[in-house]
Amino acid sequence: MQRAIVLGAGMVGSVMAVDLARDPGFEVTVADNREDALARVANAAASLRESPAGASSGLRAPSDIRTVRADLSSPEAIRALVAPYDLVLGALSSRLGFAALRAVIEAGKDYCDIAFMAEDALDLSPLAQKHGVTAIVDCGVAPGMSNLLAAYGASQLDDCRTISIYVGGLPRERRWPYQYKAAFAPSDVVEEYCRPTRLVENGKLVVREALSEPELLDFNGVGTLEAFNTDGLRSLVHTLKVPNMREKTMRYPGHIEIMRIFRDLGLFREDEVEVGGSPGKPGVKIRPRDLTAKLMFPKWTYEPGEEDLTVMRVICEGTRKGKETRLTWDLLDAYDTTTRSTSMARTTAFPCTIVARLLAGGTIKQPGVHAPEAIAQPAIVRRIMQELQARGVRYSEREETL
Amino acid sequence: MQRAIVLGAGMVGSVMAVDLARDPGFEVTVADNREDALARVANAAASLRESPAGASSGLRAPSDIRTVRADLSSPEAIRALVAPYDLVLGALSSRLGFAALRAVIEAGKDYCDIAFMAEDALDLSPLAQKHGVTAIVDCGVAPGMSNLLAAYGASQLDDCRTISIYVGGLPRERRWPYQYKAAFAPSDVVEEYCRPTRLVENGKLVVREALSEPELLDFNGVGTLEAFNTDGLRSLVHTLKVPNMREKTMRYPGHIEIMRIFRDLGLFREDEVEVGGSPGKPGVKIRPRDLTAKLMFPKWTYEPGEEDLTVMRVICEGTRKGKETRLTWDLLDAYDTTTRSTSMARTTAFPCTIVARLLAGGTIKQPGVHAPEAIAQPAIVRRIMQELQARGVRYSEREETL
Repeated sequence: MQRAIVLGAGMVGSVMAVDLARDPGFEVTVADNREDALARVANAAASLRESPAGASSGLRAPSDIRTVRADLSSPEAIRALVAPYDLVLGALSSRLGFAALRAVIEAGKDYCDIAFMAEDALDLSPLAQKHGVTAIVDCGVAPGMSNLLAAYGASQLDDCRTISIYVGGLPRERRWPYQYKAAFAPSDVVEEYCRPTRLVENGKLVVREALSEPELLDFNGVGTLEAFNTDGLRSLVHTLKVPNMREKTMRYPGHIEIMRIFRDLGLFREDEVEVGGSPGKPGVKIRPRDLTAKLMFPKWTYEPGEEDLTVMRVICEGTRKGKETRLTWDLLDAYDTTTRSTSMARTTAFPCTIVARLLAGGTIKQPGVHAPEAIAQPAIVRRIMQELQARGVRYSEREETL
Repeated sequence: MQRAIVLGAGMVGSVMAVDLARDPGFEVTVADNREDALARVANAAASLRESPAGASSGLRAPSDIRTVRADLSSPEAIRALVAPYDLVLGALSSRLGFAALRAVIEAGKDYCDIAFMAEDALDLSPLAQKHGVTAIVDCGVAPGMSNLLAAYGASQLDDCRTISIYVGGLPRERRWPYQYKAAFAPSDVVEEYCRPTRLVENGKLVVREALSEPELLDFNGVGTLEAFNTDGLRSLVHTLKVPNMREKTMRYPGHIEIMRIFRDLGLFREDEVEVGGSPGKPGVKIRPRDLTAKLMFPKWTYEPGEEDLTVMRVICEGTRKGKETRLTWDLLDAYDTTTRSTSMARTTAFPCTIVARLLAGGTIKQPGVHAPEAIAQPAIVRRIMQELQARGVRYSEREETL
């Protein structure tokens, strides 16, 4: 029996905890400073155990989940908290991710997380090696499965020349005007729409404006989507030696035009603007992005039970045995009406809990901090895909000779 | 020789002054509290006199225009100012229009203006009758020519059942994203996009949301435009007994969708919103419309020399001699590169200066305050159209039997 602790009882953390608790090999604790969030996780596990759906699709019903209240913004608190556990999973906001990673490494515990932190987690690799800790970060869907499939696809070609990653979280119902809701913090979405994007072209790192190079693509089961550059390559820029790599976010067509207009107007500006003044009377200073946040975020928030979708496409192109070859993986996942968990939470949490099992079982053991592309060996990728499929998250694979 | 004074030396007032000064029957003064605006008018007249273009198209070059500095926000100042003149023309902002009208009436002077004031000018009609003053208000393009043509068209049918007025000011060049610039105060445009619109249906006054009932229509020389309800019927709601009347504003297609999104987001809200606060720390309160104004208005401002267009269509439908008949007037006017005056200023100023001549000559003499539909007698309409045509503002007329 392994003792695992999940840091964070939010949407993703709760799905992680329930998934691990379905495994008789784990005793699961979840930590958060929000009492209500902890209660929700414990109740979710209990009610799944009592409902016939709890053990649906060949998965066992979850065992009890322990909860512990803790201040996860305090590295000291995390070090003390994780000491009695064999394994730690991180489901923290991007803001807390880096400090938590360091604290877990210092506590000498193997770790996997989905934090999407702004800092470069790989900077802590020497520290992890010193402590004999294996940490796999960015272990969600994108980053996460996108890295894994990009690296695996590249390894399956003799000469991979282009990697294209498309990913998006969408509401199932398209409502005017945005046709969009944010499954995670809307402020992070706005940040994504503003941050310059890094891509690799002809072996060189180039920077393009966010929201640039929109293109339409068709996605079975969803229809036509619109993809645009975002800064999502992250570690792949450095870890993969592929001369052309880009990452794009997908939305329903039209969304991005509105965002371009908002940005052009200055609604995403972070500098202060003085408004409402008159001659002789100063106005007040505000950051336009703060007002936009205030007005827009309620409109971007999923209603309870509102269904979301996750779509992803990873394309690797190059030559294999002298033939021009394209490998494509498609993911289309939807809100789970049985467990009432969002597709975003499912597709993000499961890669992390599956990797956690591989860490616990010793299948992955390479001290240091790694992005998922570091574990893209065929046996591991196969195992992850099988486990995802058992949880209803299906990546289809297609191979074309061009 | 008649002595005329124009109140206001802005874009429209300056065109009024120059137009009157082309007439040997007038000695023209223009009043404003902005020294630079006054200098511009005087210089414009002087330079037109010296250039061959000044007397183009059969119009005489303007004589000298006198200028006088005055505080036009003070009714007392206006009463004193206009005392020595035979006739007064108003080219004031909507904010100052009503008080100025009252002051001119109290001074006992005939008046015509283009103020587009929020108050009901006709409330001052008893006062004007008492002073023996004839005042024609809203004497621009729309309101103005729109009222005149609607009333004239209705009088040309035995039974007019529907009046539709379409009007718009547009930049000649369409630029992403708004395809729009504001030839007058952009805050008035936003107000127009928010104020509920009154229209007449089956003899009843009904109120619709602003920006509602968008429709596409083709306009020779411009292409396809998009029209939507605005609150522009004004006095016609009461003065014309036509069972169906509506007024719509025209923009290039797409503009109004952006405005609908902005309104939906709350960018036009006038109530205070608190932003930028955090737990325990209050934010600042702002009216979103103030920020929108600050950010948007620079983008909506015409560059010097940037060309504008004015489009208007007035349709009167009903029966004549037992036949279903449609009368249509179309206006398409453009920036005047010779005089460097905007189409908005031309199409607005000339109806007022033409009516001023009719007042000065005694052709119009009916003490009271009137909207232009009150002077829609065939002889007057014919005269106004001829004079407009002499100034290059051409309304085409079309009659169809349906």
